[in-house]
Amino acid sequence: MRYTLILLIMMGLLSQAQGQERKRARAFGISIGVLPTGKNNAITDVAGLRVGHTTLIRGNDVRTGVTAILPHAGNLFQQKVPAAVFVGNGFGKLAGSTQVQELGNLESPVILTNTLGVGTAMNAVVGYTLQQPGNEQVQSVNALVGETNDGHLNDIRGRHVSEADVLEAIKQAKDGAVAEGNVGAGTGTVCFGFKGGIGTASRKTPDATGGYTVGVLVQTNFGGVLQVNGVPVGQELGQYYLSQHLQEKADGSCMLVVATDAPVDARNLERIAKRAMMGLAKTGGIASNGSGDYVIAFSTHEALRVPYTSKEKTQTMTLLRNDEMSPLFMAVIEATEEAIINSLFKAETMQGKEQHVVEALPLDKVLKLLKKHNALKH
Amino acid sequence: MRYTLILLIMMGLLSQAQGQERKRARAFGISIGVLPTGKNNAITDVAGLRVGHTTLIRGNDVRTGVTAILPHAGNLFQQKVPAAVFVGNGFGKLAGSTQVQELGNLESPVILTNTLGVGTAMNAVVGYTLQQPGNEQVQSVNALVGETNDGHLNDIRGRHVSEADVLEAIKQAKDGAVAEGNVGAGTGTVCFGFKGGIGTASRKTPDATGGYTVGVLVQTNFGGVLQVNGVPVGQELGQYYLSQHLQEKADGSCMLVVATDAPVDARNLERIAKRAMMGLAKTGGIASNGSGDYVIAFSTHEALRVPYTSKEKTQTMTLLRNDEMSPLFMAVIEATEEAIINSLFKAETMQGKEQHVVEALPLDKVLKLLKKHNALKH
Amino acid sequence: MRYTLILLIMMGLLSQAQGQERKRARAFGISIGVLPTGKNNAITDVAGLRVGHTTLIRGNDVRTGVTAILPHAGNLFQQKVPAAVFVGNGFGKLAGSTQVQELGNLESPVILTNTLGVGTAMNAVVGYTLQQPGNEQVQSVNALVGETNDGHLNDIRGRHVSEADVLEAIKQAKDGAVAEGNVGAGTGTVCFGFKGGIGTASRKTPDATGGYTVGVLVQTNFGGVLQVNGVPVGQELGQYYLSQHLQEKADGSCMLVVATDAPVDARNLERIAKRAMMGLAKTGGIASNGSGDYVIAFSTHEALRVPYTSKEKTQTMTLLRNDEMSPLFMAVIEATEEAIINSLFKAETMQGKEQHVVEALPLDKVLKLLKKHNALKH
Amino acid sequence: MRYTLILLIMMGLLSQAQGQERKRARAFGISIGVLPTGKNNAITDVAGLRVGHTTLIRGNDVRTGVTAILPHAGNLFQQKVPAAVFVGNGFGKLAGSTQVQELGNLESPVILTNTLGVGTAMNAVVGYTLQQPGNEQVQSVNALVGETNDGHLNDIRGRHVSEADVLEAIKQAKDGAVAEGNVGAGTGTVCFGFKGGIGTASRKTPDATGGYTVGVLVQTNFGGVLQVNGVPVGQELGQYYLSQHLQEKADGSCMLVVATDAPVDARNLERIAKRAMMGLAKTGGIASNGSGDYVIAFSTHEALRVPYTSKEKTQTMTLLRNDEMSPLFMAVIEATEEAIINSLFKAETMQGKEQHVVEALPLDKVLKLLKKHNALKH
Repeated sequence: MRYTLILLIMMGLLSQAQGQERKRARAFGISIGVLPTGKNNAITDVAGLRVGHTTLIRGNDVRTGVTAILPHAGNLFQQKVPAAVFVGNGFGKLAGSTQVQELGNLESPVILTNTLGVGTAMNAVVGYTLQQPGNEQVQSVNALVGETNDGHLNDIRGRHVSEADVLEAIKQAKDGAVAEGNVGAGTGTVCFGFKGGIGTASRKTPDATGGYTVGVLVQTNFGGVLQVNGVPVGQELGQYYLSQHLQEKADGSCMLVVATDAPVDARNLERIAKRAMMGLAKTGGIASNGSGDYVIAFSTHEALRVPYTSKEKTQTMTLLRNDEMSPLFMAVIEATEEAIINSLFKAETMQGKEQHVVEALPLDKVLKLLKKHNALKH
Repeated sequence: MRYTLILLIMMGLLSQAQGQERKRARAFGISIGVLPTGKNNAITDVAGLRVGHTTLIRGNDVRTGVTAILPHAGNLFQQKVPAAVFVGNGFGKLAGSTQVQELGNLESPVILTNTLGVGTAMNAVVGYTLQQPGNEQVQSVNALVGETNDGHLNDIRGRHVSEADVLEAIKQAKDGAVAEGNVGAGTGTVCFGFKGGIGTASRKTPDATGGYTVGVLVQTNFGGVLQVNGVPVGQELGQYYLSQHLQEKADGSCMLVVATDAPVDARNLERIAKRAMMGLAKTGGIASNGSGDYVIAFSTHEALRVPYTSKEKTQTMTLLRNDEMSPLFMAVIEATEEAIINSLFKAETMQGKEQHVVEALPLDKVLKLLKKHNALKH
Repeated sequence: MRYTLILLIMMGLLSQAQGQERKRARAFGISIGVLPTGKNNAITDVAGLRVGHTTLIRGNDVRTGVTAILPHAGNLFQQKVPAAVFVGNGFGKLAGSTQVQELGNLESPVILTNTLGVGTAMNAVVGYTLQQPGNEQVQSVNALVGETNDGHLNDIRGRHVSEADVLEAIKQAKDGAVAEGNVGAGTGTVCFGFKGGIGTASRKTPDATGGYTVGVLVQTNFGGVLQVNGVPVGQELGQYYLSQHLQEKADGSCMLVVATDAPVDARNLERIAKRAMMGLAKTGGIASNGSGDYVIAFSTHEALRVPYTSKEKTQTMTLLRNDEMSPLFMAVIEATEEAIINSLFKAETMQGKEQHVVEALPLDKVLKLLKKHNALKH
Repeated sequence: MRYTLILLIMMGLLSQAQGQERKRARAFGISIGVLPTGKNNAITDVAGLRVGHTTLIRGNDVRTGVTAILPHAGNLFQQKVPAAVFVGNGFGKLAGSTQVQELGNLESPVILTNTLGVGTAMNAVVGYTLQQPGNEQVQSVNALVGETNDGHLNDIRGRHVSEADVLEAIKQAKDGAVAEGNVGAGTGTVCFGFKGGIGTASRKTPDATGGYTVGVLVQTNFGGVLQVNGVPVGQELGQYYLSQHLQEKADGSCMLVVATDAPVDARNLERIAKRAMMGLAKTGGIASNGSGDYVIAFSTHEALRVPYTSKEKTQTMTLLRNDEMSPLFMAVIEATEEAIINSLFKAETMQGKEQHVVEALPLDKVLKLLKKHNALKH
């Protein structure tokens, strides 16, 4: 515990040593895309949605955690939300996707954790759901659990995530600003060779097209050739996949969670989900062979909740027409790009397993590059 | 324990009372399809494949278990097999499918268990794989775990399957004849309103087309209008989905595992997997809304093993041409149909949770019907 | 022309020589499944739907045609219907599927024809749509055109289907009883080695589950081991795929069109479509490698029409809940099975290209077999 | 004809008036990505592949054409190539995709044309294939035909593309440099509100990873917020989707054809295809609702050709392992981005139907912007 504290202080010093406080991209004048953000520029701008983290930093080699996303404050199993999953690249252990795809809805919190923690997280979600008031007769629970592999910094084989950690993330879930960087499921992740983590962002579509909010939360652990707001940062820093002097690996993974308050059903949510990978592409990600890149998209629109049981055989819904989808597509692309960049901007240098150190993205250098490329707002 | 024994004796008496020893369908002269079976008429006819069960029958209400299918005797993670998954109906919690679909291979035993035991089974498979000699550096394991819901007979909310139970099923795995009926993951399942369970069958394709073996193992827990070898048994017994006097539900699920020694890659394995649902259809299954019907297909062909690591960038494979696939398609349809019927023929009447009793398929009546319909071999 | 007449007379004699008038299966007491049929036991039992055929029998070797299915009597482009496509086996040239899958709707008549006529049929549908009153500004038309290969009886390389033939089928479309057998797109097809063709059937779901109608129309041109109402007709007649004395090929194709008046959207229509392949399986089809087995499903439910343009950004729909889908699944399985059998029962022996003769299913023998197997209603 | 000439001269003047000769992006110092290009920086860098265009500019309102891509110089039907299709957004009329997906191969030239010309192009490809020496017995041809909608500049309802035009494009196909801009299927297309067209580019993977070539050819007709080498050109020029003062539509489509000489099968080609959409994303495309964004990927690797008929039941192939795919993924992303930019750089201002004028991308302004953003190579 004490060691952890010292480590944390050291890491703080390290990042200070870089001469730049870690703030979100937008705080430095980086303005990605053309649409306005929501209030907190976070997935929680989608009203009612809550996010919770359990961050596990213990000793030399536990650098992992759990992030929980709760679409609404009610009983999710009794009031399911329309949802879809898109597989960007399926080298990953996402659990629960086929039922979401078949039934078009989500009945549990979305849990993100590390690769070897999926079973435990499923067990936790099952337990959580069985014990919720109102679910006494429930015998079937579809837990949606994603992961990325934090094994470079974290003793992943030690399997340190417990069911209690998962439940704690659910319990801690709250609205408002979302902690980013080395927290929750992003605690030990690596992105473009720099320290990755949790990031989030949001967009509002123009009022004339509905004024909907799209929020994205990412767990970044992938590679490629980093671009920040169009600037070839990876190349300029000489750190990128297939560069000659580095054995940079592009593998890893990215979990992408997309929420919207727009009234869209599963079919159009799948289309929205597909666009998140286009946002990832704009940061220079390549969805490498070893990457588990999954997008989970859901709508929190209240009138679209799917009751577990109903006396009615039908449900009446008011849905956006296909023709109205493009602004939402653009919103998710922009929000995804910014969420990924935020994860890098907020993540601090971390030392972990076998004394591996992963440096934070050097903000001072990056900002200099962005200035050089005229990519900062004046 | 003592109670269990008494119960088992009672169940034996019950089934004896039906005047008919429970044997496999073929033992009664039921000959499904036109292709010959393998030696044991079991998935284990695919050489090297092993099956193990853990059967949990405890007290009044534990009626569940685990079935493990091991494609070969070696280290599966180090020597992956080409594999595919087809989703017949996705109301189910199958874990691991997306990676199999993306990479086209399987790196773990296939585990079947109950709906709420998937997380535990994943954990067990992860632990098993991490600890296998040679896997000391492994940090990522894709556990393929399927399930059906045995909550009518089993206290499923009690979550009685432990990691040890899963490991035991793996350990018990053996070749040769496969126990069917109320064993392993089929211990508490219900099929067409009768006691379901584990069933298996196999087919050989004609020598002129390659002489390959296709084996199928099923965990039957679904509904519809039962047909046995084309005979409308469900209708004649007055027990079927949408009959007027019964509130028969068609829901449930069916896990279908298909193995072959034919040299086929993931693309053609997916096509093979798709046909297993056609075999299910021939038993009268309808893949109802609430059914988790998944097919896992893999090839054990030795020269197609995918090494985890390799000095070579390429792998040379000799694969069947598309044009040669039809006999395999027919084989999987036939073997699936017979495996499902076998599960019903071998499963005995069971009493479980809340004193629910699910009767075995009444073989005497069924055989009378088959005779009436001239559906027995002379 | 004269020759054609003589040929037709000869074929009539041939089929008379078999001593059995060609009627639909149900007329002989064959009662497939447990659900009641609609009034005409045809896809046209779905109110408003119309079917038209153009049958091309000319000289020695033109044996082909076109079948058009119009979901409703209005302007289909302006009032699209929810729709989905399922690919049973994709060895086929179905045009238009990806847009249906993406947008979830159908904007044209469904056209069936022969394999090499798809381009011409697309052109005809495009022309038809551009010229419909109200479509003066339309610049993009998604024609949905399916096919099977009638090249055994038909000079398919001669490409005898013209745009006029397609337009004529659309023009001829009417409600009520549907011509079956050697008509329209089924004129030259072969099924299980017998003469195939067009077949249709329908089912009503119980009033308590909504009382919806599901209609199916098929163009049968595939193989396997024929079963009629569960009776192994193919085996008993010694004519089946992989039989030793015959070089029976299982290839060919089956187009399956499913219509319903139930209020279901594209996602659940895709699930319905998937079940049609289960109905095909019950006739002994195996979806062989060379088969183009596609299912097109749509809902004619009036309140679900998708207007091409709208002042509203949203559309309000009342849809069946997932939980209510199973009766529809069962209905489509039964109707598909019966539609295929009807195509065989109604198709007459035909001589065509290179004096190839394909015999009609010998009804007298088949009915004897069904009697032997107690598969006729008393 | 004379008028056409005058028009062409006028257009030449117009583009000269912009003060900048239209050259490919790289000629101006724009260097996209980190991998080297092939010799011609074109899809034809994949050895043996040929491209042909038919450009139709007639009178005031015919502005359309055909582009043909031939994977190799032999008989494509007799020597099929491994292939896959990925649907980025399916609002489009691509024909032939399901068979490619099922069988994993391509047996015809890839044809691109306008939306209403697909049927005609299919007919042409069918005729072409039937008549090729060696194909005398062929009765089934899967034509792969893609399209985008050039109806803003072209009298698309006039359906001016003939079968002869398609055959001419096939006949004209040649290796070496590829004409770009307003040629072939790109003659009348619009991209980001500027004149789009045909573009191409290629990449070589590092020798250490195989030294393979990946080539891309695009037909650009889509929208979003244009970015050129990371520079927000669309924003800076005030022309982008959802900008306030413009009614910019993002709809349209993009056909993307990817070729490689790497030894990869259909499964990995599908993964490659998926990444092309990531390259499109980097240009600011959003795959809007009305966009038909399809990727066709194939391998020309000679040892992977799939013979139409074979005495052998098996085929031996040497394939890249999954682990080796990432460099190819990166290559296709880079080549796609550059191909799209090339299409814009090479396309000239065009006047067409109803005197619509679509301006070419103003290269002088764009280059100024790229300079401002330090996005030109020194």
